[in-house]
Amino acid sequence: MINDRTHTDRAMMQRCLDLARRALGRTAPNPLVGSVIVQEGAIVGEGFHPAAGQPHAEVFALRAAGDRARNATLYVNLEPCNHYGRTPPCSEAIVAAGLQRVVVGMVDPDPRVAGGGIARLRQAGIAVTVGIEEAACRKLNEAFVHRILHHRPFGILKYAMTLDGKIATTTGHSAWVTGPTARAEVHQLRAACDAVIVGGNTVRRDNPLLTSRQEHTPLRVVMSRSLDLPTDAQLWDTAIAPTLVFTEAKAQSDVQQALMQQGVEVIESTPLTPAAVMKYLYDSGCLSVLWECGGTLAARAIADGAVQKVLAFIAPKIIGGSTASSPVGDLGLMAMTEALVLEQMEWRSIGSDLLIEGYLQNL
Amino acid sequence: MINDRTHTDRAMMQRCLDLARRALGRTAPNPLVGSVIVQEGAIVGEGFHPAAGQPHAEVFALRAAGDRARNATLYVNLEPCNHYGRTPPCSEAIVAAGLQRVVVGMVDPDPRVAGGGIARLRQAGIAVTVGIEEAACRKLNEAFVHRILHHRPFGILKYAMTLDGKIATTTGHSAWVTGPTARAEVHQLRAACDAVIVGGNTVRRDNPLLTSRQEHTPLRVVMSRSLDLPTDAQLWDTAIAPTLVFTEAKAQSDVQQALMQQGVEVIESTPLTPAAVMKYLYDSGCLSVLWECGGTLAARAIADGAVQKVLAFIAPKIIGGSTASSPVGDLGLMAMTEALVLEQMEWRSIGSDLLIEGYLQNL
Repeated sequence: MINDRTHTDRAMMQRCLDLARRALGRTAPNPLVGSVIVQEGAIVGEGFHPAAGQPHAEVFALRAAGDRARNATLYVNLEPCNHYGRTPPCSEAIVAAGLQRVVVGMVDPDPRVAGGGIARLRQAGIAVTVGIEEAACRKLNEAFVHRILHHRPFGILKYAMTLDGKIATTTGHSAWVTGPTARAEVHQLRAACDAVIVGGNTVRRDNPLLTSRQEHTPLRVVMSRSLDLPTDAQLWDTAIAPTLVFTEAKAQSDVQQALMQQGVEVIESTPLTPAAVMKYLYDSGCLSVLWECGGTLAARAIADGAVQKVLAFIAPKIIGGSTASSPVGDLGLMAMTEALVLEQMEWRSIGSDLLIEGYLQNL
Repeated sequence: MINDRTHTDRAMMQRCLDLARRALGRTAPNPLVGSVIVQEGAIVGEGFHPAAGQPHAEVFALRAAGDRARNATLYVNLEPCNHYGRTPPCSEAIVAAGLQRVVVGMVDPDPRVAGGGIARLRQAGIAVTVGIEEAACRKLNEAFVHRILHHRPFGILKYAMTLDGKIATTTGHSAWVTGPTARAEVHQLRAACDAVIVGGNTVRRDNPLLTSRQEHTPLRVVMSRSLDLPTDAQLWDTAIAPTLVFTEAKAQSDVQQALMQQGVEVIESTPLTPAAVMKYLYDSGCLSVLWECGGTLAARAIADGAVQKVLAFIAPKIIGGSTASSPVGDLGLMAMTEALVLEQMEWRSIGSDLLIEGYLQNL
């Protein structure tokens, strides 16, 4: 009996996560949340949080269930809120609807909630189960959790290298390291992020578009101290997606003018650091930021604590080249024992390539 | 009934491969072969080829089975030989023992056999099945097959790098990139090879021992054009294992003298190339040669066609460094589209590290 209930609880929580994912990349600064209401084994209502300013997932689920919510079980991957934000507290709506039981994936780390929603439900006599499929719930909202706890967006460094560790040839040529399936995966990754950052070198050398080919394209960000940039780069086409260029005060004003005329926002930040850009993006509400830069900027971002997760695509190729670029530039580490350790390393094949992911320890 | 027989055939062939592996690293220039004789569902004899000059696997199995070989089935992972070498032909011994059926993993690519053994058995009225667990049989003897077909040893390039593609820090420090489980795996790999090659740089910088900590230690080979080597390196302790140093005619004669006094064999080969060393090792009977060198020599070995397989250990670490060494030096490839492609890429975790292996296409 217990096992049956646990099995149902897990399946329904996975359904919440599936629902939550429908808004991937579009909820910032809010978390991804899905909710399901089950009455006598049947789903009688479900919903997800589509975007900031819109109702929470539980509200959609309660609306769909109507009277069938009475004495039912509500599933939600994140603790229901208990405070008045842009919307009234979900905990009160759940109490009012007469739910018998609530199953919560994880406690909301937001200090305005942090167990308060669960306490309110229990106070009202509702049975609450917490921590079903918790690892999956935490992973789905890892960017939200990091943002809440550290007051910074969650930084992801993504690169594609050959099996001999190069991201380009000795002449800088890099199209393409990985195959079409991996490149499509990168488009999905961009769609799930709120901003994508490159440096001036990448703009000059690769002239990238940095779009997602999906419904949601992230904010495209360029860091260039000198503003020594071409005025006809693909990134300046802001009809596709907005572009933000960070530079320093002394930078070339003619380029600045040319960019602004094309609708590119130019922000001066001196000294220009990854940390300063992450602070700005935090204040703008970004949850997750994708570093798609070359090795020099990647090293600066890591050193600045702006990278929490590494996604390395490895292609089954050998290109060679003792001066060919590698994914991470100078970190000032002299002994191999000083290397930054990646935790929770996982890998899977993506077409003919391999994707390895891991989390930087203590960053 | 057919399915039962196929199932038994596969299980017995796997047993042959297990037996064959007992001589891993010790059969050169001969293949790894195991044999099992089955009478009415029971194994009545088995054996493996322990070393060149010793009897073949079938002979050991026939001896063990004695009279019970009559009307039995003999399993062997490689076609029985049909020629007089150091031992008489196994095909005749099988015919004489009155076997009813012979199951062969793969045809022997050796032109002195090449189907002749199978033809002889069929001519004698024995039922022969060929190609059971053939992929596994080919993989176990990939070095033997390559040697027979290309008249060169099978070259394996092994390296250990961080997830950002470095084999050392910017100062050259590399102890250790991978963890103890991966390093133990390298010892096993060495025990399965006939020679291990490093360059002078590796001797100067890492002072390696290159032993296997197993019963069999491969021949240790150093390539150094200049002979600019320390005279007290660990590799010169030939009480542990033999060491061979290849150099060019103009090299330092005092170092040459010092090495020879310690029992190191010094061979002049001008110009000194990976291909010339592989030719020498082929003539010495080596099946498989492990390149454990740095990027410069690795690139020369690849360019010379001396590398057929790549084994890349990847550690969950980021070390950084734009001038830090990477596994493969200059190959003269300017566009990413020219990259050498690895086929049959496979990976598995080894402790906290990842081991990726693949075969260089058309080499």
